[in-house]
Amino acid sequence: MQIAFVLYDGFTSLDAIGPYEMLSRLPGAETVFVAEEAGPVQNDQGTLVVAAERALHEVTAPDIVLVPGGPGSRRAMLDETVLAWLRTADATSTWTTSVCTGSHLLAAAGLLEGRRATSHWLALDDLVPFGAEPTGERVVFDGKYVTAAGVSSGIDMALHLLGRIAGDEVARTVQLLTEYDPQPPYDAGSPQKAPQRLVAQWRTRAGLVLGADA
Amino acid sequence: MQIAFVLYDGFTSLDAIGPYEMLSRLPGAETVFVAEEAGPVQNDQGTLVVAAERALHEVTAPDIVLVPGGPGSRRAMLDETVLAWLRTADATSTWTTSVCTGSHLLAAAGLLEGRRATSHWLALDDLVPFGAEPTGERVVFDGKYVTAAGVSSGIDMALHLLGRIAGDEVARTVQLLTEYDPQPPYDAGSPQKAPQRLVAQWRTRAGLVLGADA
Repeated sequence: MQIAFVLYDGFTSLDAIGPYEMLSRLPGAETVFVAEEAGPVQNDQGTLVVAAERALHEVTAPDIVLVPGGPGSRRAMLDETVLAWLRTADATSTWTTSVCTGSHLLAAAGLLEGRRATSHWLALDDLVPFGAEPTGERVVFDGKYVTAAGVSSGIDMALHLLGRIAGDEVARTVQLLTEYDPQPPYDAGSPQKAPQRLVAQWRTRAGLVLGADA
Repeated sequence: MQIAFVLYDGFTSLDAIGPYEMLSRLPGAETVFVAEEAGPVQNDQGTLVVAAERALHEVTAPDIVLVPGGPGSRRAMLDETVLAWLRTADATSTWTTSVCTGSHLLAAAGLLEGRRATSHWLALDDLVPFGAEPTGERVVFDGKYVTAAGVSSGIDMALHLLGRIAGDEVARTVQLLTEYDPQPPYDAGSPQKAPQRLVAQWRTRAGLVLGADA
């Protein structure tokens, strides 16, 4: 089982590495980081550089496709090479997945039309023009399409996937070995739970956060 | 405020990237990935390559030091260059921190003697020969020394740190923007919560998991 993680400049690191950490522990799985060209790819902060091992055209039929989000998704979703690759990979994939605004790339490739999907809470509405039905849920399964909400939610998505693919025992093992027993010291991780003042403040700055100008 | 993330071959990716994702959002923070030599560093799975921007000797006085864990920690904790750097950096740091078996490097450098600390649940006992007092807690503060348990716990540690450094408002903002509202589909993330059969099975295989042979 080959799992392809799609990188592009301006991706958000945890969107990719969270699920990578969990899914790479799937027995028999081969993980590969891919980008338009093989080589270094810079994250949204400009301070992390990850190597894409393969160019997109070198990985033609992954079993799982995972697209992270990040401010760079605004540019990537206009890149016909990326979108064409997503359509081709999706034609034979078992699971086509995204984290955060990675769902915008899937949507722009035409893969989420008529489907329930999710994204970063600040970017849910951007799915609508592509015919997707945004939900506020953390992880959304619609057939083989699996989308996760903002940044950290990819870890939860990966555990769901591990359960579906390899069963509860494997998923629980990965959770135990990664000691994923979250104990955040605050309870502000969603727009429903955070102070409403903060939520309102960031809604007005959404373009800035999500890189409308990128 | 400069935050140095120490890389070495065989590090566990989420140990580093989880806290990096959260701490890099601290206003005014400068993050830097460092390793014995600048350049590519491979993770424990051998499928992720992250660039260390600077060599250790180029970063002499970071405000925060963060050491991730991973099977490669067994070798790194015998590396006198790394240990000497940790002692020097610690002499002027505001916070000296670790995730997972990263605490073994701090311990081997002599920094945790007489201190409460934590590590991956399978590796707590390995802190004892260095004079540290292992606890089963997820995040342990002892003065400026902050240690987190296995892999994913670095995310919680980072939120604690953000709160101490910049206040609750900033920490809640980072939690909201990373949508860190964990909803794992299983409840097996600690040896107390996981099926005891699994826990026992992995205790007998601890050397394999944590890379005793690495």
